[in-house]
Amino acid sequence: MSLFSSHKPADQAQWDNFGVDWVVHYQFEALEISKAVDEFESLLRDLDDAHLETQVRHGHGASLLVFIRVPSAHLGSLVYHSRVKDWLYGIIHELPVGDDDTIADADTPAESLRSVYHAVTWQKKLGGAHITPRHGRWKNVASAFPLHDQAANAELLRKWSRTILLTAEDLDSIRALFGEKVAFYFAFIHSYSLFLAFPAAWGVVCWWHWGSYSIPFAIGDCLWAIVFVEYWKIRETDLSLRWQVNGVGALKVTRTQYVWEKEVRDPITGEVVQVFSPYRQFLRQLLLVPFASIASLALGGLIVATFALEVFISEVYTGSLKGYLEFLPTVIFSLCLPSISGLLNSIATRLTQYENYRTQDQYDLAQTAKQFVTHFITAFLPTVLTAFVYVPFGARLVPHLNIPSFQGKAPADMPRDFSVDPGRLKQEVMYLSLTGQVLSFGEEVVLPYVKRVALEKWREYRTRQAAVQNRRRVSQGTSQVLFDDPDESAFLSRVRNEAEADEYNVHEDTLEMCVQFGYLTLFGSSWPLVALGFLVNNWLELRGDFFKLSLECQRPPPIRADSIGPSLQGLEVLSWLGTLSTAAIVYLYRDGMAEIRVSSLLLTLLLSEWAYLGMRFAVSTGLRKVLSRTLRREAAKRYAVRKGYLKATASEGSPPRGKLRVRFRGRVSVFTSATDPPSPQSDEVLREAMLHTERRFWSRRPNQVLEDGVRIIRALGQGGPKIEKEL
Amino acid sequence: MSLFSSHKPADQAQWDNFGVDWVVHYQFEALEISKAVDEFESLLRDLDDAHLETQVRHGHGASLLVFIRVPSAHLGSLVYHSRVKDWLYGIIHELPVGDDDTIADADTPAESLRSVYHAVTWQKKLGGAHITPRHGRWKNVASAFPLHDQAANAELLRKWSRTILLTAEDLDSIRALFGEKVAFYFAFIHSYSLFLAFPAAWGVVCWWHWGSYSIPFAIGDCLWAIVFVEYWKIRETDLSLRWQVNGVGALKVTRTQYVWEKEVRDPITGEVVQVFSPYRQFLRQLLLVPFASIASLALGGLIVATFALEVFISEVYTGSLKGYLEFLPTVIFSLCLPSISGLLNSIATRLTQYENYRTQDQYDLAQTAKQFVTHFITAFLPTVLTAFVYVPFGARLVPHLNIPSFQGKAPADMPRDFSVDPGRLKQEVMYLSLTGQVLSFGEEVVLPYVKRVALEKWREYRTRQAAVQNRRRVSQGTSQVLFDDPDESAFLSRVRNEAEADEYNVHEDTLEMCVQFGYLTLFGSSWPLVALGFLVNNWLELRGDFFKLSLECQRPPPIRADSIGPSLQGLEVLSWLGTLSTAAIVYLYRDGMAEIRVSSLLLTLLLSEWAYLGMRFAVSTGLRKVLSRTLRREAAKRYAVRKGYLKATASEGSPPRGKLRVRFRGRVSVFTSATDPPSPQSDEVLREAMLHTERRFWSRRPNQVLEDGVRIIRALGQGGPKIEKEL
Repeated sequence: MSLFSSHKPADQAQWDNFGVDWVVHYQFEALEISKAVDEFESLLRDLDDAHLETQVRHGHGASLLVFIRVPSAHLGSLVYHSRVKDWLYGIIHELPVGDDDTIADADTPAESLRSVYHAVTWQKKLGGAHITPRHGRWKNVASAFPLHDQAANAELLRKWSRTILLTAEDLDSIRALFGEKVAFYFAFIHSYSLFLAFPAAWGVVCWWHWGSYSIPFAIGDCLWAIVFVEYWKIRETDLSLRWQVNGVGALKVTRTQYVWEKEVRDPITGEVVQVFSPYRQFLRQLLLVPFASIASLALGGLIVATFALEVFISEVYTGSLKGYLEFLPTVIFSLCLPSISGLLNSIATRLTQYENYRTQDQYDLAQTAKQFVTHFITAFLPTVLTAFVYVPFGARLVPHLNIPSFQGKAPADMPRDFSVDPGRLKQEVMYLSLTGQVLSFGEEVVLPYVKRVALEKWREYRTRQAAVQNRRRVSQGTSQVLFDDPDESAFLSRVRNEAEADEYNVHEDTLEMCVQFGYLTLFGSSWPLVALGFLVNNWLELRGDFFKLSLECQRPPPIRADSIGPSLQGLEVLSWLGTLSTAAIVYLYRDGMAEIRVSSLLLTLLLSEWAYLGMRFAVSTGLRKVLSRTLRREAAKRYAVRKGYLKATASEGSPPRGKLRVRFRGRVSVFTSATDPPSPQSDEVLREAMLHTERRFWSRRPNQVLEDGVRIIRALGQGGPKIEKEL
Repeated sequence: MSLFSSHKPADQAQWDNFGVDWVVHYQFEALEISKAVDEFESLLRDLDDAHLETQVRHGHGASLLVFIRVPSAHLGSLVYHSRVKDWLYGIIHELPVGDDDTIADADTPAESLRSVYHAVTWQKKLGGAHITPRHGRWKNVASAFPLHDQAANAELLRKWSRTILLTAEDLDSIRALFGEKVAFYFAFIHSYSLFLAFPAAWGVVCWWHWGSYSIPFAIGDCLWAIVFVEYWKIRETDLSLRWQVNGVGALKVTRTQYVWEKEVRDPITGEVVQVFSPYRQFLRQLLLVPFASIASLALGGLIVATFALEVFISEVYTGSLKGYLEFLPTVIFSLCLPSISGLLNSIATRLTQYENYRTQDQYDLAQTAKQFVTHFITAFLPTVLTAFVYVPFGARLVPHLNIPSFQGKAPADMPRDFSVDPGRLKQEVMYLSLTGQVLSFGEEVVLPYVKRVALEKWREYRTRQAAVQNRRRVSQGTSQVLFDDPDESAFLSRVRNEAEADEYNVHEDTLEMCVQFGYLTLFGSSWPLVALGFLVNNWLELRGDFFKLSLECQRPPPIRADSIGPSLQGLEVLSWLGTLSTAAIVYLYRDGMAEIRVSSLLLTLLLSEWAYLGMRFAVSTGLRKVLSRTLRREAAKRYAVRKGYLKATASEGSPPRGKLRVRFRGRVSVFTSATDPPSPQSDEVLREAMLHTERRFWSRRPNQVLEDGVRIIRALGQGGPKIEKEL
């Protein structure tokens, strides 16, 4: 794909991040200048207290960009202590060698960025600066984020555009750049897409031989779903051990919003633990049940109403403007959906806050679980209604829709011999699998990209015009801070764009894949080619998601996780529902709706459910048996570590000490082995040039930084409305 | 209970084990004397090579008892190395302090006996004597077992006969005496019996208000089953952490019978691992499916035939001898059952051997899983037939049993208006819960006890007579080894009885409880008082099982386990089947068999299954949330250990070394704190006397021991048949 391969290595200099580890985006548009100056001063003081170096530049509009760099010795110490903490909590089995003054070398950029993230966001008593964007004291901090490694991103995109399969090293690279949470999503979509090959091929065979609603495809599809879910469970453990994040949830720090009932000194560890009764939390969690019921009713009612109206208009109504009126219900539904979803989401957020989770992880998981409910209803209910209510019972139900007063016609005008087209389910599934996926891809990736590029161009144009007009209106010093140094301008405009970009939400992408999986298991049997469509879509989706992540979103903080989260339970439920739904669809539709008997249908459901339970047990036992290699490898590793330790203490009487390591310019290679090593000569020249600009960028001392910031605030805050209009 | 409280503390001397750690029972009845002498010599040599002290006495008949004692320094070293191995495999988190020469003090008798067990049975390259009873070189070794701690056993029995509930300390005592595998069974029966209190009470209430087949009891019963199974899963983890055996299966040694495909040097640990393809093993395990099918068909066919014959005779046949003929089918069934069970068991054993498990643990589990299938069929199929075939459809089926040629009567003589008594199911359940349990208790505990006591008395009588007759027939030296020293005679007769006793099979007792649980969940709704019966029965069963274990069986080697094994899966399946069965029984029987509709029945089943799945999910989530304390405590403990280690290495530069400990006479107290300390004076005298006899018992040197043994073999083996008849 030529779109991705146009980057040349010479651009590398332009992609340099000037040694910036983190950026804080401070907005003071709605603030008084004195207040803004105060806040800015305390921001700088807090960062300085946490041993972080800072520089300041202006952002888009009335905002400041505070650039943060962690001195390399301090960063090395943070990395080392983070590893010791991992060991204390049993995440890793090998005690990192060293003592309190050890400076460790991060294995991946994500590891060092995670330590930077902790230094910026952790509470002060834990050694951080406690900068919490959009919360409490820092509600004017719009965001705090690391900068993208553009060269590595482009390299990955370029590589993937030429290959079909991702390798284990590709996943390791994502992990190295964005942390485990994001890497788990890409591992998931990759495994899932690979597995899709089976239903895609089997679907083509079955479609060729038996057409839709065939029993062989139904069985293959359900079995496939069970095998995939069980496989993924093992794969997840495998990855979490490979990436050394198994059980990482235990060491996450307490959220600022956490309310505890009492502080207890743990009798065993001696640490002070903040306790909130798990029993009360469980009671609060039970509120999910009424929430899910209300959400189901609200969304379900809306969907049923829309559906009924649509059917009424398209199949019964014969009046004027029929062509336009047919679209009316869908339009109304689409208009209502955002506000209803928003309402439900705000209720969900409140519920999750009320449930009072200790760590951000648990909070996110609980929130995602609630989004599941609403997502699943909006995604599946319309098709469920078509498959199990409208087509089988439509002929009996639709005549009841005839309300004379609404239509102003006599009932006699109604078509008495109304019959429902049994192919409607197939059409709906075809539409959703082909056009639906393409449209959603465009909406998700292409449209934002076009919008962003257009906005950038427009801004550039306006800035250039404003610059010409304003050059003489400000003092020398202010002009120096308001107008970019030519060396920095490309870098700064990139950072400004990243500051305005959206945050990347990995849960949403995972959810999208779960919905796709659900479509395949629930309704796949009605059109076996659907898996093929999904397979093609996912090739693009994987790359599109990475494109979105690396070019349209802020780089997410490299958070660790040991699973794709509650989506796993969603997949399990879907594979179970899928078996029931597939059995019912095949039973109902195979003979074209001829002679449906309730008892046979129920027996089909019961038998398919037993088959599901039996197969799931067999598959999980068998897979665990055959794929137990990783777990054994993990045990062997721990054994080896302990054995080595034992030997070391036996011979020396003390564990070996680590040697001091020095980080070079705070940069670590993503790829363990580069495929084409750059020519050392040109590389040296380039590095020299980059080092020079970087040194200049960080040249201003702390009080000068403070001065610069205050000057920008005064210039933009006071004259803000004026200049803002022009910028 | 006066049966147990008659023991006086003065008996303590009589219960002393003379410092014997292990006993090997060698039988040479069918052997030539020279061969027997050779085998005995190599037995002594192997034991001596493994640094074990030996003494020899004659047993019942043509057999030798080889008494083994592990020198206390050697035992302490074994215990220490076993702990280091635990640490290496990640079973415990704290590295035991010490070095290669450390002598550790066992925490419990079970821990030291486990080391003795390893010293006796492990392969020579692992440092053991490799004595494998009834296998290979040692097929003439009838058994090898530790001696009971009679005082502790009696103390526990006495304590339990006075209380209703067991405490955590009681379970710890069982663990200290018999090891974790046995302790898990007692923990299970205790938890289960406690939980039974709810259905017992609820059953009485429901029976009072609504009688049989009531919906409230059915719901309560099913919910209870789900809660119990989920609770037990957590409780099991809890106990395995408390007893430090979690994941203990990983460090078990390879069985002698294990066949491996290749030996591979593990790239990580550097240890040589014997590999057998898990894929091939899984394929072999799949043979369980045809085995289960064949077993079901064979047993099922037999049961159906018996059932049909019984029904035919009792309800249709009107000829002569009816009173006797009625019992004929059951008698035939009972006569056939042992041989069919035996055949199935021998097939099961072959299958399990073919499946080729590396450790004895895995082998036992696989064998037990197969016994499950046969046990469950024989236990539940008759009642299932009554509940779901005979009573609902009997009126339609029974007339077909009328075969004129068999009966020699005209079909017209048959009662045409045949109807089945709907109360039959209730009667069957009542019989099984009350008389059945009492009978099985008698069969299992009381009968063997009576038999054993009678046999002992008879043997004593014959021995005394033979002694009078034979005194002058043998030489002085032989007489010395053939007739017991008066000081030892009580001890030796006790050991001889233990040598002849059965091995204790903990899986069978567990299985019995699972069958009881199955009765309650499957058929409990037909007579709600059944749980009350089980509750009373289990009070006795728990004590009876301990009585059997401590007085009628050999003391089992203190094997470790971290679960009750495959029974857990059996419980899960039963709680699921129970929901379906209860729903069906309540639906069918509630209105006295009036208007049964297949579609309603199927709907009932489907809905109850969904309710089951939903409830199980909710219960397991909720319980795990509320009962997560232990897991957190475990994590906290590991944290504390690592923290402490970190501090120690930081300040000293090396982990603290352990001090040498000395074991006193190889005895460790079972109870951490005795309730009534014995008076020191009389205790001292007693101890002095015991020490004296013990010293005399162990006074003979190795070559004297060999001489003694050879002499016994010559005396009993040659004149064996003669003397044996008289002894």
